[in-house]
Amino acid sequence: MLENKNTKLTPIENIGEFELIDQLTKNFSIENPSSIIGIGDDACAIDFKKNLSVISTDLLIEGVHFDLSYVPLKHLGYKAVIANLSDIYSMNAKPTQITLSLAISNRFPVEALEEFYDGIKAACAKYKVDLVGGDTTSSTKGMVISITVIGQTNHKKISKRNGAQANDLLVVSGDLGGAYAGLQILEREKAVFKVNPKVQPDLDSYTYSIGRQLKPEARKDVFELLDELKITPKAMIDISDGLSSETLHLCKASSLGCHLYEQKIPIDHEVIKICEEFKINPTTAALNGGEDYELLMALSQSDYDKIKNHPYLTVIGHFTDSETGAKLITGLNQQIELIAQGWNPISKAN
Amino acid sequence: MLENKNTKLTPIENIGEFELIDQLTKNFSIENPSSIIGIGDDACAIDFKKNLSVISTDLLIEGVHFDLSYVPLKHLGYKAVIANLSDIYSMNAKPTQITLSLAISNRFPVEALEEFYDGIKAACAKYKVDLVGGDTTSSTKGMVISITVIGQTNHKKISKRNGAQANDLLVVSGDLGGAYAGLQILEREKAVFKVNPKVQPDLDSYTYSIGRQLKPEARKDVFELLDELKITPKAMIDISDGLSSETLHLCKASSLGCHLYEQKIPIDHEVIKICEEFKINPTTAALNGGEDYELLMALSQSDYDKIKNHPYLTVIGHFTDSETGAKLITGLNQQIELIAQGWNPISKAN
Repeated sequence: MLENKNTKLTPIENIGEFELIDQLTKNFSIENPSSIIGIGDDACAIDFKKNLSVISTDLLIEGVHFDLSYVPLKHLGYKAVIANLSDIYSMNAKPTQITLSLAISNRFPVEALEEFYDGIKAACAKYKVDLVGGDTTSSTKGMVISITVIGQTNHKKISKRNGAQANDLLVVSGDLGGAYAGLQILEREKAVFKVNPKVQPDLDSYTYSIGRQLKPEARKDVFELLDELKITPKAMIDISDGLSSETLHLCKASSLGCHLYEQKIPIDHEVIKICEEFKINPTTAALNGGEDYELLMALSQSDYDKIKNHPYLTVIGHFTDSETGAKLITGLNQQIELIAQGWNPISKAN
Repeated sequence: MLENKNTKLTPIENIGEFELIDQLTKNFSIENPSSIIGIGDDACAIDFKKNLSVISTDLLIEGVHFDLSYVPLKHLGYKAVIANLSDIYSMNAKPTQITLSLAISNRFPVEALEEFYDGIKAACAKYKVDLVGGDTTSSTKGMVISITVIGQTNHKKISKRNGAQANDLLVVSGDLGGAYAGLQILEREKAVFKVNPKVQPDLDSYTYSIGRQLKPEARKDVFELLDELKITPKAMIDISDGLSSETLHLCKASSLGCHLYEQKIPIDHEVIKICEEFKINPTTAALNGGEDYELLMALSQSDYDKIKNHPYLTVIGHFTDSETGAKLITGLNQQIELIAQGWNPISKAN
């Protein structure tokens, strides 16, 4: 969990709340002219002039959303930001600020928090977003992370979930199932480590999938590509709970059905290999595995020429009227009802 | 904790995440024209036209920030919103939207969440703010609440912490120490109840203080009064951690000292009575007791005539240059260094 192997660690009780926040945030700089007031006041202030503010928030609980036995704190900080940025890109908006609230039990020394903030900072720097506020407090158990991300767009560009129409193309960025495959590998290694801590895991042939799980990226490049190609998706969502769940969200919000072609779903060859090892159908990994943070969108057929053969985007189906329902069309041309079996943190409650 | 005494309670596992959110939020309406997209998309969208967005966020952990053995869930929801709205008023801004993220362990049935949301709804209705987003998930232990509140103001009106100048008046709204006094009563009754659950508490003579603890209000009226009187505070903060801590924040941010007159601090007679019972100095309760959610501000001397004798506002001192330091002037005209002893959730960590 902690990469700092120094044995002199600083208990958080040794440092006051305000000093702790000062220490953790001192190396963050403000890059966006819209960030008028940052950390250190009762609230941050943002000036988007005439533009819309787009805001999304996420709550992550240790033991439910992340497992520190195989997630380094720096990666956790990075990924927590990415998951939120992805929600803003999925509105066809540009993320510009985040606030971070953190609750921690006293098992975390200050150095652990510094590593976590290093990950936050790396994500802020890469995506050019400013940390402008938050809260640091104690928890009775484990770590709790709450991130709110603020972005900007305008009325003409914003992509909601409900704007798709029948015959629109169903298009996805990147490839799917990688984060899920990476998680299978990490969970297996954790189990092996428990039995024999001396075994050195050989993870070299799984680097793509483990990377997708531990250090995912948000599709800033796709957001910028759409802008460059002058494409405004008629509806868009990010894939955090699996392709089937997100496709159904678009269908429901737009009151449509769809045809999703199994053979068109983009899946990396390493993911297929891992699925074979674990005896999982790769389509199942893509449909129900979460955390890929790809963008799923409805594009007008008239935009097809602009995107065809682009390496970032794959047409995987089209929308239909609602009576057709949401269908997966298999390689054998069978129609199967699409069902959301994505990860549900409520039903997983214990 | 739960006011619904119906014995048929619904376990949260019986209901999916999205259905749960639908059910809990179905009675919330959108009132502000700036709320462009609310619950149900990847992010909310807000249109403040040319105005500034002001954003604040808070994380509340069961067992650290609240105790469900004496706080009814409806009150908890109400108070969680109030604490955040107060941060927005303290920027001299008008709160307009909130997002709510909630993590709960499976000891909470759906009915408990409905009561919590009833409190959220009551606060939203009273303060005319819209619930526009959030997240509902499970926790491994207890309840975690994260609220982000969004408000609007403009460059001319916004009050930061750092705008005070020497000789400005130090002015506070309402009275102080009430929430702290109420907490003493509730903790005593909890201890009595543990020993003998049949004892009916007699809380009638403590209603003001218990109300201040369990159902505080944010000073919307003071925000509106300042607007009416055409006063822009040169600096402002809300009192969540006690008068001394917040006064020191204003002094530090503005690089000033201050004289704070003990005998001018407004304290309700019931609070004085409770302090006598508990052998606490009422000044200590006002200086170090938190959660009063009053506004503390620096006003120009030229604004004095507008506010003198106004029942909402009391002049309790003035700012001085930084070399003087921050001093409490006692009734005997002694100068005592002002020290922040407010509640510190980090040092309280366990």
